[in-house]
Amino acid sequence: MIKEGDTVQLKDRKNSFFVRLKKGEVFGTHKGNIYHDHIIGKQYGETVKTHKGNEFIILKPTLYELIMFGIKRQTQIIYPKDSAYITLKLGITDGMKVLESGIGSGALSIVMANAVKPSGKIYAYEKEEKHLKVAKENLELAGLDRYVSLFHHDLSEKLPEDYFDAAFIDVREPWLYLANVNSSLKRGSPVGFLLPTTNQVSRILESLSSHGFIQMEVKEILLRNYKPVPDRLRPEDRMVAHTGYLIFARKG
Amino acid sequence: MIKEGDTVQLKDRKNSFFVRLKKGEVFGTHKGNIYHDHIIGKQYGETVKTHKGNEFIILKPTLYELIMFGIKRQTQIIYPKDSAYITLKLGITDGMKVLESGIGSGALSIVMANAVKPSGKIYAYEKEEKHLKVAKENLELAGLDRYVSLFHHDLSEKLPEDYFDAAFIDVREPWLYLANVNSSLKRGSPVGFLLPTTNQVSRILESLSSHGFIQMEVKEILLRNYKPVPDRLRPEDRMVAHTGYLIFARKG
Amino acid sequence: MIKEGDTVQLKDRKNSFFVRLKKGEVFGTHKGNIYHDHIIGKQYGETVKTHKGNEFIILKPTLYELIMFGIKRQTQIIYPKDSAYITLKLGITDGMKVLESGIGSGALSIVMANAVKPSGKIYAYEKEEKHLKVAKENLELAGLDRYVSLFHHDLSEKLPEDYFDAAFIDVREPWLYLANVNSSLKRGSPVGFLLPTTNQVSRILESLSSHGFIQMEVKEILLRNYKPVPDRLRPEDRMVAHTGYLIFARKG
Amino acid sequence: MIKEGDTVQLKDRKNSFFVRLKKGEVFGTHKGNIYHDHIIGKQYGETVKTHKGNEFIILKPTLYELIMFGIKRQTQIIYPKDSAYITLKLGITDGMKVLESGIGSGALSIVMANAVKPSGKIYAYEKEEKHLKVAKENLELAGLDRYVSLFHHDLSEKLPEDYFDAAFIDVREPWLYLANVNSSLKRGSPVGFLLPTTNQVSRILESLSSHGFIQMEVKEILLRNYKPVPDRLRPEDRMVAHTGYLIFARKG
Repeated sequence: MIKEGDTVQLKDRKNSFFVRLKKGEVFGTHKGNIYHDHIIGKQYGETVKTHKGNEFIILKPTLYELIMFGIKRQTQIIYPKDSAYITLKLGITDGMKVLESGIGSGALSIVMANAVKPSGKIYAYEKEEKHLKVAKENLELAGLDRYVSLFHHDLSEKLPEDYFDAAFIDVREPWLYLANVNSSLKRGSPVGFLLPTTNQVSRILESLSSHGFIQMEVKEILLRNYKPVPDRLRPEDRMVAHTGYLIFARKG
Repeated sequence: MIKEGDTVQLKDRKNSFFVRLKKGEVFGTHKGNIYHDHIIGKQYGETVKTHKGNEFIILKPTLYELIMFGIKRQTQIIYPKDSAYITLKLGITDGMKVLESGIGSGALSIVMANAVKPSGKIYAYEKEEKHLKVAKENLELAGLDRYVSLFHHDLSEKLPEDYFDAAFIDVREPWLYLANVNSSLKRGSPVGFLLPTTNQVSRILESLSSHGFIQMEVKEILLRNYKPVPDRLRPEDRMVAHTGYLIFARKG
Repeated sequence: MIKEGDTVQLKDRKNSFFVRLKKGEVFGTHKGNIYHDHIIGKQYGETVKTHKGNEFIILKPTLYELIMFGIKRQTQIIYPKDSAYITLKLGITDGMKVLESGIGSGALSIVMANAVKPSGKIYAYEKEEKHLKVAKENLELAGLDRYVSLFHHDLSEKLPEDYFDAAFIDVREPWLYLANVNSSLKRGSPVGFLLPTTNQVSRILESLSSHGFIQMEVKEILLRNYKPVPDRLRPEDRMVAHTGYLIFARKG
Repeated sequence: MIKEGDTVQLKDRKNSFFVRLKKGEVFGTHKGNIYHDHIIGKQYGETVKTHKGNEFIILKPTLYELIMFGIKRQTQIIYPKDSAYITLKLGITDGMKVLESGIGSGALSIVMANAVKPSGKIYAYEKEEKHLKVAKENLELAGLDRYVSLFHHDLSEKLPEDYFDAAFIDVREPWLYLANVNSSLKRGSPVGFLLPTTNQVSRILESLSSHGFIQMEVKEILLRNYKPVPDRLRPEDRMVAHTGYLIFARKG
């Protein structure tokens, strides 16, 4: 049964809206208003009508859909092809304390927060206040804000020592903060980076070596979509060719 | 603190072993025996000595490492590049009831079991008894067996109706079982398939249409590794070119 | 020294024009008129002025540039990544008689015509008159029209027997014409196809088998461009993900 | 009709040999000896018997087959996916004077020599004598040696000025020779490089800029093979993931 605080996907033939439910509130669409109270108490798969009588089906959004279609994007986001892999590669799971910085629009934070719940936490450092605000809204929409502690700061702030079980760093010059990140990690903990240029990859690899990190790996993930037509099956004409290189290591 | 039931990674310069700890047991290596009791109570990052005095470091393995290096492989496994994406795309999360069949060596089951814990469950159907046995051992190694119900059966067995929140089907002829899978899913639930040939992709797309599924998508994920040498950065010479096509849909 | 009949590239900072030179003619640009006679007799690398005094540098265009930037495109063209490979794979070289159909805008015809010159010939069958007209203009621009015989016909027209040294077929249903193509090829001759969908690939493979062709191969070629910035080297954000599958075989 | 000096492919069910024909010579196989004189005068597609009575079919090899299966490989070769593209991108055609260095086993030299014939020439600089020897044999096998002038020298030797129409450089540190290459090229001429690491790519881009080259481009080409089975069509399991980055520019 759908309850207050849930985020639902409202879908008609052309549109798809993602709404977090709160008693008494109204969601306005160009097809009319939808009262949250008309949704609360229903089952997923049922429909709701606007005050103009137009019908929307109520679906339970996957995190994937929330990230791809629901969240506000103020920055380039980390896409599911990368965020799913990062989260598995870093071994993010229930109970872990995970350092993340910067967080941009929070697309990776959502995936990692879902992985550490119920007893873990993401410690998210972001120096841009406007990103922090958007990330907070997006985490609320995903219903995962309680698993993320947001800090309006970059990584030059002294981090707690021997504290984190894993870290993911997505900033332009991660080598500037590597000593701080290193001392904040427990021994053996995995760390990841996303960097768009080969020059940055070379530089972080050097820096990782000089700080005693081990097991360095560099990867890229390519996702290719096909037109799902059974008798004319073929890849789509164009694809995303690059989001970033993924670099992984462990504290030595 | 490391406790009984945990799976640890024992690592020296050349070897890496994955061991689930049980009081009183002994793990034999070519460098001597290691007593589980010598590990229980230590911290990750500490070392343990064999009876011959050789030292191993005790690390907490990530699920990624367990899947890539720890589990027994009796079949082609679903690799992390795919299993991480599948799990996010299907929206697998705490509390969900997920249908999986076949399960092979259980590599995907491990990732999905980790995602549904603590209150959800994977319902894993596998017709080959020898696979089932290996999958069970692998799930135990990962400490996730309690989140998976194993059934020695293929999908021709009548499934409970309107029951599952998601499904992933990795069998040669999934269209044979699609009516059964369809009726077992709750309305709007996501379903995924892995199929190696384009002919199978065409066939399942047709079958999905005729059973009223919606939002069909076909994808493939390519992972490219680089040699992590800062001043000679380059992709590795060879890569895995194909594991399988991923097909996703929702019950309409 | 540049002479009548040559195709030159006229380039300023923003524009690039491809012009086949003819005595007495004038080429109009938004920066003023350029007299062909002012170009004839010059060397590549020199400049020419419009009647308004604006300067253009005169370059010798490569076939690559002509195909990518110079020719009229009335159809999806076969790109250099594919046309170069096709031409080498089919062993197209001086003196060969090559069957091609359809030819679209002639982008592949240009590459193959350049390869068979001076003593070979492309026999180009195209059923669409408007394509034929554009292809002819494009071949003239490339200065290669004399090496191509154009036929306004599809492959249902009876072809000469035991005649061609190679063939490339780019039509929607090539299996309809395979008996005709087969009998027109000399024994052992290579043949190629470009087909966008996997269903077509399966169908032509079946048809090739049943007509006794040997050495079937299926390939696809992906081209990834990088931003050529030395200190921020990275792939471009997006790429062409699919032009078509290339299928090769030999007459058995 | 097959004549002396032609290179033929001799093929039975299991083997494929590439032989350049010379009157009076004998080619030994494990199935018996084949007299060149028994081949000369025949047509392609006919068969020849060994002295033990075993039959081979006589085929005209494509350059592609010669490169992939016929030539001796003493070095990593430039594969057809790259050599075909390089040749088209550089605009190599009849009559051009082309600089190449190093040439390794001559796989690219063969493709470019075929493109400049009959009136052009490849000027091939190679510092390793053993490579030069193998490249010479390979060019002879391809029947293209007359279009290539081989120089036992690296690019530190002063090149003729304002002389070449195009250049392709495949050496470890091409920036060392760029001033020399630059002055040897005619204005506007295209130049290409193959480099395996991103660091080398960055370095040559910098060097190209500082020497006044224009229109820099960086590309990589991926070739994916499929299993040609009509009812089980799928990519092969593994592929070559990297041969090298291709860098192109023009003399400014």
